[in-house]
Amino acid sequence: MTYCVGLMLDRGLVFMSDTRTNAGVDSISVFKKMFQWEVFGERSITLMTAGNLATTQAVVSLLNERSINGDDRGILSIIQAPSMFQVAKLIGETLREVIADQASQTGLSSDASFGASMILGGQVGGGEPRMFMIYPEGNFVESSVDTPFFQIGEAKYGKPILVRAYDATMKFEEAVKLLLLSFDSTLKANLSVGMPLDLHMYEANTLHHGRVQRIEADDTFYNEISSGWGEKLREAFDSLPDFNIDKR
Amino acid sequence: MTYCVGLMLDRGLVFMSDTRTNAGVDSISVFKKMFQWEVFGERSITLMTAGNLATTQAVVSLLNERSINGDDRGILSIIQAPSMFQVAKLIGETLREVIADQASQTGLSSDASFGASMILGGQVGGGEPRMFMIYPEGNFVESSVDTPFFQIGEAKYGKPILVRAYDATMKFEEAVKLLLLSFDSTLKANLSVGMPLDLHMYEANTLHHGRVQRIEADDTFYNEISSGWGEKLREAFDSLPDFNIDKR
Repeated sequence: MTYCVGLMLDRGLVFMSDTRTNAGVDSISVFKKMFQWEVFGERSITLMTAGNLATTQAVVSLLNERSINGDDRGILSIIQAPSMFQVAKLIGETLREVIADQASQTGLSSDASFGASMILGGQVGGGEPRMFMIYPEGNFVESSVDTPFFQIGEAKYGKPILVRAYDATMKFEEAVKLLLLSFDSTLKANLSVGMPLDLHMYEANTLHHGRVQRIEADDTFYNEISSGWGEKLREAFDSLPDFNIDKR
Repeated sequence: MTYCVGLMLDRGLVFMSDTRTNAGVDSISVFKKMFQWEVFGERSITLMTAGNLATTQAVVSLLNERSINGDDRGILSIIQAPSMFQVAKLIGETLREVIADQASQTGLSSDASFGASMILGGQVGGGEPRMFMIYPEGNFVESSVDTPFFQIGEAKYGKPILVRAYDATMKFEEAVKLLLLSFDSTLKANLSVGMPLDLHMYEANTLHHGRVQRIEADDTFYNEISSGWGEKLREAFDSLPDFNIDKR
């Protein structure tokens, strides 16, 4: 399993992904699930992936190869596509191509085994920062004011805090804190999501990558937030009135 | 879907279940998922169910019929079984019987469509209060100091707050507050879980039902807790230090 979140803020986009993959509980590995493409001053693109690792790695390899060697079908590559919408379309088509290819080669009719979902975000010169959720079928939806964040993978544990505390006007510093809390809730509940975490903060209209960094399990800030949150939640809980049995 | 939680506390057992069932999003109904049996002064038994409604209703009907008419196989009924362990065994067997019956009648080999999970808790005279989670296969596990609560159905959204705030020494008034917060997180995120909620507070060693009540969507306390929690979470969030980008 996996957990990735993309937040759309007024100041830009913030992405966080875990790095655990597992085939059974006795076969776990660390794999990066966040990928980036940049044309400095023209575009910054971030992709996060969940699902079948062979599928997502093949998609990323194809996108990379075609951005270097060109696409023999004459399609513009990820570093050439003229808008974020066209980038989403390109990735969706590549994903569909890989899934169909793997399904046909194995003779399995169901695509479910090879499925993957992706969060795509970034900005291409001339456009606004945009964020998309791409489905295994290759189609996609775009985030909006009403749905300003996307989650893929093991999304349920970490959703309540996002719903309660997200605010589009947040600073990046607050957004990272929010994401770490959402990941902390998930990490505490599900073994298939694991440290370290990858983080990218894309500042709107810069058109180049922002700070990209890895947060390790022994990160001081993460541990301070994680233990502090337990205490604060307990205080918040205690400060609410108890259920009054006698008044019923 | 469904959401039910059973908490094992020093003072007794607290059960809460939602009441929504759905066959698609355009066919939702209110059905009770909490069932009780009592022999005043001798036993109090509570059962909460998730999964196929036809299965769970058939199990409850069979348990009821056999407790009134006796079991033609000579097995002691739910109001006669000598211990909570024997009650769990009886319910597990009845559940397996119903699922096997429905699977064989339809000719479907998979039991998945007819599956159900259950939380059983209570006390039989001479024993301690005990709580069990019963699986579709009819087998079951018992709660312990290490795992003092069980959830069935749509359990993920509401788990983080249970993990963080549960304490075995809680009063019932606090436990109900905790359960309402766990349900609130779930209700806010998943349409398949819905109000009203059923609540039973069983006080240890009383050997009769405790307060049983229904919490409606317009319940004053529930709404106070729900909106208060949003504010308190936000305050807790703000009081934690922000991520310091420059120090990295």
